[in-house]
Amino acid sequence: MSVKISPLAPTSYPEMPILAGVRLASIEAGIKYQGRKDLCLIAFDKPAQIAGVFTKSKCPSAPVDWCRKHLSKGRAKAIVINSGNANAFTGHKGVIATKQTANAAAKVLDCEEEAIFLASTGVIGEPLDASDFENKITKAYSKLSNEGWHEAAQAIMTTDTYPKLATKAFAIDGKQYHINAIAKGSGMIAPDMATMLSFIVTDLSVEHTVLQKLLSRYTKSTFNAVTVDSDTSTSDSVLLMSFGDNDTIADIKSLQIKTFKKALRAVMRELSMLLVRDGEGATKQVCIKVTGATSKQSARKIAKAIADSPLVKTAIAGEDANWGRIVMAVGKAGEPAERDLLTISFGDIMVAQNGERVPDYSEEATSKIMQADEIDISIDIGLGKGKAKVWTCDLTKEYVAINGDYRS
Amino acid sequence: MSVKISPLAPTSYPEMPILAGVRLASIEAGIKYQGRKDLCLIAFDKPAQIAGVFTKSKCPSAPVDWCRKHLSKGRAKAIVINSGNANAFTGHKGVIATKQTANAAAKVLDCEEEAIFLASTGVIGEPLDASDFENKITKAYSKLSNEGWHEAAQAIMTTDTYPKLATKAFAIDGKQYHINAIAKGSGMIAPDMATMLSFIVTDLSVEHTVLQKLLSRYTKSTFNAVTVDSDTSTSDSVLLMSFGDNDTIADIKSLQIKTFKKALRAVMRELSMLLVRDGEGATKQVCIKVTGATSKQSARKIAKAIADSPLVKTAIAGEDANWGRIVMAVGKAGEPAERDLLTISFGDIMVAQNGERVPDYSEEATSKIMQADEIDISIDIGLGKGKAKVWTCDLTKEYVAINGDYRS
Repeated sequence: MSVKISPLAPTSYPEMPILAGVRLASIEAGIKYQGRKDLCLIAFDKPAQIAGVFTKSKCPSAPVDWCRKHLSKGRAKAIVINSGNANAFTGHKGVIATKQTANAAAKVLDCEEEAIFLASTGVIGEPLDASDFENKITKAYSKLSNEGWHEAAQAIMTTDTYPKLATKAFAIDGKQYHINAIAKGSGMIAPDMATMLSFIVTDLSVEHTVLQKLLSRYTKSTFNAVTVDSDTSTSDSVLLMSFGDNDTIADIKSLQIKTFKKALRAVMRELSMLLVRDGEGATKQVCIKVTGATSKQSARKIAKAIADSPLVKTAIAGEDANWGRIVMAVGKAGEPAERDLLTISFGDIMVAQNGERVPDYSEEATSKIMQADEIDISIDIGLGKGKAKVWTCDLTKEYVAINGDYRS
Repeated sequence: MSVKISPLAPTSYPEMPILAGVRLASIEAGIKYQGRKDLCLIAFDKPAQIAGVFTKSKCPSAPVDWCRKHLSKGRAKAIVINSGNANAFTGHKGVIATKQTANAAAKVLDCEEEAIFLASTGVIGEPLDASDFENKITKAYSKLSNEGWHEAAQAIMTTDTYPKLATKAFAIDGKQYHINAIAKGSGMIAPDMATMLSFIVTDLSVEHTVLQKLLSRYTKSTFNAVTVDSDTSTSDSVLLMSFGDNDTIADIKSLQIKTFKKALRAVMRELSMLLVRDGEGATKQVCIKVTGATSKQSARKIAKAIADSPLVKTAIAGEDANWGRIVMAVGKAGEPAERDLLTISFGDIMVAQNGERVPDYSEEATSKIMQADEIDISIDIGLGKGKAKVWTCDLTKEYVAINGDYRS
């Protein structure tokens, strides 16, 4: 299997500020990998407010079921994340493993099981042996540190070729607050290993119901607006945790949290871009902008049909401004569209208008746009005001190699 | 671009019986290709009954619009098919080109324009120059022959690596009748060229309304049950034509046409398999059988989600019995499914049951199944009685090469 680092990897990683009240530790638990950390503990000094968004899969993993079940209380003392085994499609054994893990962590952290949240990523269908997790979590607990962000981002990786971190500061009433976040994911589900995971922490105390609304809202235009291969993991999870000394903010319309909202959305956007740029085999980051659809939902569906089309994605890999395939993908989306009203641009070059090729567009200039590693493709449907953006990457032989060049 | 013949190509082609009353000719019209035939005329001595099924694309080609418009009359004197240019996304020019083509053919064949049906396949977005089609169709007309089936199957090819023909004989009241058919298609839409086309002719006279019902019915489990890359062409068209000396059959429930129905479905099934086996880059033919879904429609949706999943398809290319990816695809279909009721088999080997891996299944025996070039994957959802089959092929580097290794 390929271990080349994505050509779209960042050239540097952000310095993560210390957030007093949250500590992290990552250890080698030997779940599947050898010689690397694969178990991560994120612990809060005082219980944090928590919100979550999970996979839409009808066959979710046992940890996703666990988190969903306990989210309504909105309180988290710790998050336990492992890589190497997704604990998905593991039946009753999977349920037991989540219970064991939460129980072990609750003992170590001296809290209720319901305050322990879980995420697992890796092989699907193999039972996760959590029998020794109390020892492992005890070991991790002894190493907790305010500075463990980079290690944590690495410990949760599976086929990722680089760790994914983002941080933003924002001010409220003259006081500085922060959001620190990590993520992993490289296909929507990767070779025998799965999943997009993200953990976002802020030192501004916000009521969990407000967190939940904001997380759900921003997920649509960030994590749910990126696609690598249209495949949906059994385990996708985004958790947002909040704690702090301020009076807990409980009003979503409060002017006070305007800066927080903006920072949260920016962090989620940044992590989403890091995911797409680490798409398996990716050599190009592509933004599909649809305007003029009959509704926002319709625009999103059209953008997703384009972003998921193997023929569009292979054309981009070939640096081919193949707008015929864009038309095809618009057509297959099944949403209102009229051939003779479509306008299609690559970068700022309009190549098709009113159902026809623009006769005199410069092939040379278009070629230059396709050679860049970030490409914008804009489609105006010409029917309404609905618009949406979806980000994706190209489909290369490397994708097939990563996902097909081995046998289990 | 690759020109290797599919490893799944048939080793021989059927002998096509002569159907008195239909004649074919194929000529080099120089539309795009050099040194090969690219214009095909299928002419009926007396007007045939005609039925059609077309792409569901919201941006259909001009010839699809033309056929839809004239299908209600149910009479065809001739079909004009060209390869090399799809006449799709060509705006008003495309409409004019269809009109010109039909007008030219109507003159040559001495009939009304409405009795001329059209199909085009090839580049999208380039205007089709039909100004000289009267000369070309005249030339084709002079070469019409009862024996032109093989040539026709070749003339309509784009990225197909082999021509696709099928024939069946059936008897009614002691008399022998026939169905002859040709098809083309290699991706649901191919590099810069598009489309699945099929033309099916029978010398049993059947009323066009009956033909239409049967064609629509059987398309679901044949042409619409195969998928190469989930991409839908702007031009997909299946036309079914019927003529003969018998009293035209107008009752779909007539016992008389039982043998015809069976033969028609068999021909459509055979052509569908030829399409999937010529899928771009294909090395395996895969049948996804879903049972136990809550409805037939639900079963079809789940089967299609599996068949279209890049991760399932790359695993098959890698000969990996990766049932974790099957679970993922079931989950993403969005249809009722319960992890703990799923059963998954490769060939006759059950690898997962009740939400868990079958502990003692033979990896070696499963490996053998994956090495074959025809693979059956069965999924029982365990909830109801809905079932469906979908056929697909694997996703290989060759697919990416065919579709990405060039620039326009």
